[in-house]
Amino acid sequence: MKNITTIILAAGESNRILSKRSKIFHDISDRSLIDHVYSLAEKISSKDIVVVCNKKNYLFLNKKFKGAKIVIQKKINGTAEAVISADKNISKKNDVLILYGDVPLVKQSSIKRLIKNFYFSKKIGSLLVFNSENPLGYGRVEIENNCIKKITEEIQADRETKKISICNSGIMICNSKFLFDNINKISNNNLKKEKYLTDLFEIAYKRRNAFGYSFCSEKELLGVNNREDLIKVDLTMQEEIKKRLINKGVTILQPDTVRVSYDTKIGRDSIIEPFVVIKKGVTISKNVTIKSHSVIEGCFVGEDSSVGPSARIRPNSKISKNVKIGNYVEIKNSFIGESSSISHLSYIGDSFIGKKVNIGAGTITCNYDGKKKNKTIIKDNVFVGSNTSLIAPLTIGKNSNIGAGSVITKNVPPNTLAIERSKQNNLLIKPKK
Amino acid sequence: MKNITTIILAAGESNRILSKRSKIFHDISDRSLIDHVYSLAEKISSKDIVVVCNKKNYLFLNKKFKGAKIVIQKKINGTAEAVISADKNISKKNDVLILYGDVPLVKQSSIKRLIKNFYFSKKIGSLLVFNSENPLGYGRVEIENNCIKKITEEIQADRETKKISICNSGIMICNSKFLFDNINKISNNNLKKEKYLTDLFEIAYKRRNAFGYSFCSEKELLGVNNREDLIKVDLTMQEEIKKRLINKGVTILQPDTVRVSYDTKIGRDSIIEPFVVIKKGVTISKNVTIKSHSVIEGCFVGEDSSVGPSARIRPNSKISKNVKIGNYVEIKNSFIGESSSISHLSYIGDSFIGKKVNIGAGTITCNYDGKKKNKTIIKDNVFVGSNTSLIAPLTIGKNSNIGAGSVITKNVPPNTLAIERSKQNNLLIKPKK
Amino acid sequence: MKNITTIILAAGESNRILSKRSKIFHDISDRSLIDHVYSLAEKISSKDIVVVCNKKNYLFLNKKFKGAKIVIQKKINGTAEAVISADKNISKKNDVLILYGDVPLVKQSSIKRLIKNFYFSKKIGSLLVFNSENPLGYGRVEIENNCIKKITEEIQADRETKKISICNSGIMICNSKFLFDNINKISNNNLKKEKYLTDLFEIAYKRRNAFGYSFCSEKELLGVNNREDLIKVDLTMQEEIKKRLINKGVTILQPDTVRVSYDTKIGRDSIIEPFVVIKKGVTISKNVTIKSHSVIEGCFVGEDSSVGPSARIRPNSKISKNVKIGNYVEIKNSFIGESSSISHLSYIGDSFIGKKVNIGAGTITCNYDGKKKNKTIIKDNVFVGSNTSLIAPLTIGKNSNIGAGSVITKNVPPNTLAIERSKQNNLLIKPKK
Repeated sequence: MKNITTIILAAGESNRILSKRSKIFHDISDRSLIDHVYSLAEKISSKDIVVVCNKKNYLFLNKKFKGAKIVIQKKINGTAEAVISADKNISKKNDVLILYGDVPLVKQSSIKRLIKNFYFSKKIGSLLVFNSENPLGYGRVEIENNCIKKITEEIQADRETKKISICNSGIMICNSKFLFDNINKISNNNLKKEKYLTDLFEIAYKRRNAFGYSFCSEKELLGVNNREDLIKVDLTMQEEIKKRLINKGVTILQPDTVRVSYDTKIGRDSIIEPFVVIKKGVTISKNVTIKSHSVIEGCFVGEDSSVGPSARIRPNSKISKNVKIGNYVEIKNSFIGESSSISHLSYIGDSFIGKKVNIGAGTITCNYDGKKKNKTIIKDNVFVGSNTSLIAPLTIGKNSNIGAGSVITKNVPPNTLAIERSKQNNLLIKPKK
Repeated sequence: MKNITTIILAAGESNRILSKRSKIFHDISDRSLIDHVYSLAEKISSKDIVVVCNKKNYLFLNKKFKGAKIVIQKKINGTAEAVISADKNISKKNDVLILYGDVPLVKQSSIKRLIKNFYFSKKIGSLLVFNSENPLGYGRVEIENNCIKKITEEIQADRETKKISICNSGIMICNSKFLFDNINKISNNNLKKEKYLTDLFEIAYKRRNAFGYSFCSEKELLGVNNREDLIKVDLTMQEEIKKRLINKGVTILQPDTVRVSYDTKIGRDSIIEPFVVIKKGVTISKNVTIKSHSVIEGCFVGEDSSVGPSARIRPNSKISKNVKIGNYVEIKNSFIGESSSISHLSYIGDSFIGKKVNIGAGTITCNYDGKKKNKTIIKDNVFVGSNTSLIAPLTIGKNSNIGAGSVITKNVPPNTLAIERSKQNNLLIKPKK
Repeated sequence: MKNITTIILAAGESNRILSKRSKIFHDISDRSLIDHVYSLAEKISSKDIVVVCNKKNYLFLNKKFKGAKIVIQKKINGTAEAVISADKNISKKNDVLILYGDVPLVKQSSIKRLIKNFYFSKKIGSLLVFNSENPLGYGRVEIENNCIKKITEEIQADRETKKISICNSGIMICNSKFLFDNINKISNNNLKKEKYLTDLFEIAYKRRNAFGYSFCSEKELLGVNNREDLIKVDLTMQEEIKKRLINKGVTILQPDTVRVSYDTKIGRDSIIEPFVVIKKGVTISKNVTIKSHSVIEGCFVGEDSSVGPSARIRPNSKISKNVKIGNYVEIKNSFIGESSSISHLSYIGDSFIGKKVNIGAGTITCNYDGKKKNKTIIKDNVFVGSNTSLIAPLTIGKNSNIGAGSVITKNVPPNTLAIERSKQNNLLIKPKK
């Protein structure tokens, strides 16, 4: 079995996205289109990837995908020209898989089926196709004896051809030598004066060396041309991810009102309430409840813990088992020990909190002094009274108590009550009328 | 008219829910499946209920439903066997209604229609059936002269039978003596080697003592086998509840983005904004606005009050008329008097707040001293300055003021300004560069 | 070209809305039905508008729409009678456009097409019609030679007429003299004993002076009779607004979970995360991110700024460029200067904040002293420590620092460290068991 080089075509000008940035840099489910496609390419080709881009994105992509070869498509006139730009970077001993930087939903399993079809059928290549109930706009695939006879673009299709429901995804695998030997034969003798890669199939068929094909669902092949597409593709991925989690034993209530991330992991019997946002890098253990209006990112949440409603956990945080994070609480870059509780209106940043610690309402770790971030360490069994300011760097020893409303600036030894407070004065005032 | 004993079949193993707990203990709209069904059974049979469960849940159910009889289904091989397990607990003078622990949406009105049909038709029993556009998987009901001739499971249906769109819900009412006299005649001579209750209908028909039937909607008969079902059933109930509230004069904006509870009550002209979560035990009066991102549970909200956005009201709270609860405010186990205002970033727990009280931003009732919860009492016309800590137990007398930023540890008499504060020091620092 | 007087029919009793207020005063997308329709009327007729209302709303509407003429419909028996009520207020030299107070979605472009059709066809009037797949309940429009022959209400339509899919919207433009010369000929000789304006079309046709017509989409003509309608019309407008924003280059993620306002403006490359609520009077610049669970109203947000998650911006606020407003932060009636940051759990009200100011977590501007609101001014480069109370009126000079946990009551000069704090006491306590 030969190696597979993956070419990612990503040179499109993408004006229709109406953005400063090229469309391939827009996110769906917390990862850019190009990252989704690149990640798939890596699973097939490891580092043997060629990204064909436009001039504007060359330097950025070169830096971003260090292992890959980045090439600029010189003439922006069709997919064939884009593939030609990659020619020099591809070993003619390999096979070539072609993916698209703006088609991010295609599944690894569909590509593996395509590759299998290619190898087992021993054809010169194989194309990923799909059945569409409404094929308007897609290239129609004519099949004959399990081979692709021809692909006709909508614009050039006659009435009979328009009835075909099998459509071209553009994604294909092909013998590399055949590809580059024949791609130059593709002409731009068509309405748009572009060189279409799709002409290759007829060339192959006429040389009695036709392509095979493999099916996948239309949904996986949604492409992004404008913002509406971007939002639709994002929504489609969201549905996929949530369905997968639900089928593993997670209760996601009113799932259309929950947001997850491409890499979200959630354990069995956990409950995700409506209006929760899970951003990237989150692992949630078993039997956890994430309550409504919470936003969590880049963190681990341990078994039997509950978060929210309206809590925010920011990156680099670890919430241990049986912890309670309550409403209007923000946790940032912190460790929270087992069975601790931070239930109301608090900010805990750059902190280490031990076990069985109770943090009162309105507690704030003053971690930033205007220049740098400092660490707060709160040891096991500490009770921090409400409305307390903890000026970092600060360590509070085991079993200590902090009086409510205190500003704590100096370390507190173990078994100590620390308090900062003046005398309360009660002055008679004139009764209100 | 005889009495009706209700049997709830709830012995299923429910592995497909992928959970530590049996599926009947999972919630939809804040109440477990079994509680929904039990509550319906109570409306028909008061305490004359038999729950057939599996060994694992026996003790728990016995404790939970004290009035009912809980029996264990010994052989888990079909619905007939399940009913047989209840035999000894049922008076043969009664009629028997059979419900299912995993079919929670069926309405009382549908059951009442079924019972009426049974009594008026003077048949031996009556079955709840439904018309399905896509009956695949359901038992098909053959009707002849207003009687049920036979029910055929999908797996054993021939082509002609599969065309029948009338389906078996399983829910039925039946003469008790007939039921237990004939149920033993059901054999397990079928593909799954189980004893199906549905065989009873043919037995009755052949004895010229056939069952009648009554229709209800397919939606009411959705059952729960896996998490996807659970979520779908929850969603269906959510839609029902919201539609009912809307038709009583409540404005629920973008209703798919609001969550309500099975027992939510809301008065006319109240507005529920998007992303609101109403948990169980909530009664909202007339002309109330619950603003976006609020979560309220176990409380009463009086006329003309507004809550939120992003407020949380926890159980055992009463919000009086014309109160304003603002953003990032948590109220727990408290009474808030008429025309009072708690507008920003506060925690009020275990408190009694009088009329026309103004609680400043960042006020916290320090109700927990690490051992027990203490009470805060704030009398009429009090003004609490911002960022104040009120150390409970504490009473603040009528017309008093609390200076902003104070920690109040001692009771404040009426007509008093209480303040706890040090001197402000202004020290020259080197200008920043 | 003659002038156009617009008559808005808004006298309906609207009992089905189940509300204290008439249906025309209920909001969709943050503006009342009558305001939506009046705003459209103004674009056509400037101040030459007649609103036909019922007695109950006369005074209120008279005050609300000062430029317009408000007339009471004396007999509530049909649309013809309603138009007759406006007779005396309309110059017979003008043309008359008829709109409905409970049909708020019709677009200006549709009305302009109607007017064009009227002028170019030189007919006596023109009616806005729509094609409906399910015309049940609508008046059917019989067309002959590009003219309206007759309109038949559902209730009086024969089988053949019911097959017509062209329906009457009621919205029309008409020669004023013709209208008022003929409207009295309309009889109430029908099932409901009401005078229907729709009879006018047959009268005109029989006098060989028939009406023309112009199409618009059914969706624009949704009317509001009950709460379900209100919510549906609101939802339809929400979808329209979001689609328009998306097509201008805004990313609205999971758009069904976002709420916008009828007048929302958002610049290119801005991202609106799920569960955001944008109320009226909001202008968002380019490349802004509004994070989940934020609620913003009546404010401007400058380029490259980010708001939320869970932030609230209230009216009369201006957020400059490159500002960060973080979680559980409320901004009210304030100016926030460039590159400033208010990241956590703060309340900033009636304040002016300069450039590059850092406001620590838990900072509260104590703007209300129980009687009036006072102003806080914080100049450039100030650093406010966490959990600080700023008692307004207050000015903090450039480059100054405020110590965490302080209550600041007196102005702070530039380049000053202001601090209010007692001594911290550490007392040994008995170790917890």
